[in-house]
Amino acid sequence: MAEYSIGLDLGGTNLRAAAFDRSGRKLGDISKDTNFRGGREAVLGDIVAAIECLRQQYGATGLAGIGVGIPGFIRMKEGVIASSPNLPYMENFPVRDEISRRLNTPVILENDANAAALGEKWMGAGRDVNDLVLLTLGTGIGGGIIYGGRVIRGFVGMAGELGHITVNPTGNPCGCGNQGCLEKHASATAVTAMANLLHLGENLSSKDVYNLALQPGEAGEKARTVWRIMGESLGTALAVLVNAFNFPLYLLSGGMLPAWDLFAPHMFRVVEQRSATYRATKAETRITQATLGNEAGLYGAAYLPWVE
Amino acid sequence: MAEYSIGLDLGGTNLRAAAFDRSGRKLGDISKDTNFRGGREAVLGDIVAAIECLRQQYGATGLAGIGVGIPGFIRMKEGVIASSPNLPYMENFPVRDEISRRLNTPVILENDANAAALGEKWMGAGRDVNDLVLLTLGTGIGGGIIYGGRVIRGFVGMAGELGHITVNPTGNPCGCGNQGCLEKHASATAVTAMANLLHLGENLSSKDVYNLALQPGEAGEKARTVWRIMGESLGTALAVLVNAFNFPLYLLSGGMLPAWDLFAPHMFRVVEQRSATYRATKAETRITQATLGNEAGLYGAAYLPWVE
Repeated sequence: MAEYSIGLDLGGTNLRAAAFDRSGRKLGDISKDTNFRGGREAVLGDIVAAIECLRQQYGATGLAGIGVGIPGFIRMKEGVIASSPNLPYMENFPVRDEISRRLNTPVILENDANAAALGEKWMGAGRDVNDLVLLTLGTGIGGGIIYGGRVIRGFVGMAGELGHITVNPTGNPCGCGNQGCLEKHASATAVTAMANLLHLGENLSSKDVYNLALQPGEAGEKARTVWRIMGESLGTALAVLVNAFNFPLYLLSGGMLPAWDLFAPHMFRVVEQRSATYRATKAETRITQATLGNEAGLYGAAYLPWVE
Repeated sequence: MAEYSIGLDLGGTNLRAAAFDRSGRKLGDISKDTNFRGGREAVLGDIVAAIECLRQQYGATGLAGIGVGIPGFIRMKEGVIASSPNLPYMENFPVRDEISRRLNTPVILENDANAAALGEKWMGAGRDVNDLVLLTLGTGIGGGIIYGGRVIRGFVGMAGELGHITVNPTGNPCGCGNQGCLEKHASATAVTAMANLLHLGENLSSKDVYNLALQPGEAGEKARTVWRIMGESLGTALAVLVNAFNFPLYLLSGGMLPAWDLFAPHMFRVVEQRSATYRATKAETRITQATLGNEAGLYGAAYLPWVE
């Protein structure tokens, strides 16, 4: 049996697990609804069962390792989640060691956005580079920084919190304590909130706001303003990232990507205006869409045993 | 003869060169006024003469290598300065190869702030860590990012332009094309400009504004406002850096450091407010003063041959 790896991605909607060979070919996968509300034992049980199922299928002999992507701030050394809005009952619980104990084999834990960035580097839009930044644009905004082909984790494991780059110091208050975080101006939640603020309607989805923006008239104009602010905020944050890293690749992923044609022109205009480094390296610096969609974290989790 | 290295730092005021042994002991140094106005040939001549003088003194046999720190955006692969406000006549000229040709030995070129960060890692405030960020607070603001004990340079060599982090998207226009760069709110030039704007006087030095802030009355109040804005701007930028890197150490250096007691309390207050990562890791995340002063770049340049 050729060597293979198991990755698991615990997302807000689905728990996915899959086995991959070293070349990045997916051998098989499992998916089920995420049961965050079921509490710690239910979530742990689902994680262990999914991995166990794959291991039985492909055998313990060839298993190179297991990676698990989880939303939240992870203290890497301890394998403990320091904070996770989605999984409060996992905080300060020895998640890694508990999964490892039940499976009787080592497990590598990683933040979900970091895992997604690593997945894009392995088999996605970043496979030709060693250094990239990923922004995941969903209900919140996550970030992952890949340098020399590996995740920059920071000394605790909290690096890459790029959704909390300040794009407007007097902007919208964020749950993190800051004001004007990128996440408060460019996530799906932010788009909904801005649409509401402009009296376009309550609880509109980003798709609703997208469709409105295609309409003529005042409502269309307001909806286009939402996407302009969203794109400009991304541009301001990307200018900071380009100036700080001078990496060849910046990827965007997540549920906001279908609105690319509405926000991207504003994003590019602002990056170009705000970053001298971008202007000086425009021919070589790519800001573009990630390609693995919601499977990036799954790929990245599976790649962890081979790269760490 | 034990192995030694030569470092050169081309600063705005002085050109310094020194020989160091592998343990970081300075064997001897040379300093002379910088002659930026003399043009390319004068500057190149000074660089080569200083290095040659040290090499003759300590011998070609034990020379491990030569590092040169220069202000400007450097294209590392080509050894060419892409842009440098202080050295326009060096732009797109093969600086590295020309110095190398005249000395008949390889030379490593590095951005001055990156070299300073590396120097602090080698023999300064960062010697006990492998990952740190340095901000040099002078007439402008430079930055250097050390990861795994080495400089993050980016694919062209322009990484670490942290003086151009946006701290206020509608703030003061910057020469880089952006508005509200950190450099426009927290450099010596910015302090002078803010003091002027508040009618404290024209062309005041940061030291003048510092002394004014110690006085009672309206002028003192205004001067304290300048340092508050300066500290808050640094805090906003540092929050971005702490969130992005989760490194254990952030160093400040440069001519603004003597005003530490006036701006640092505002800086710490804002970092704490704006960065959840800082609050979660406060006991382990240090934001403090660099210790090598204006010799950091010299140390870093000399360390380059051993670390690259």
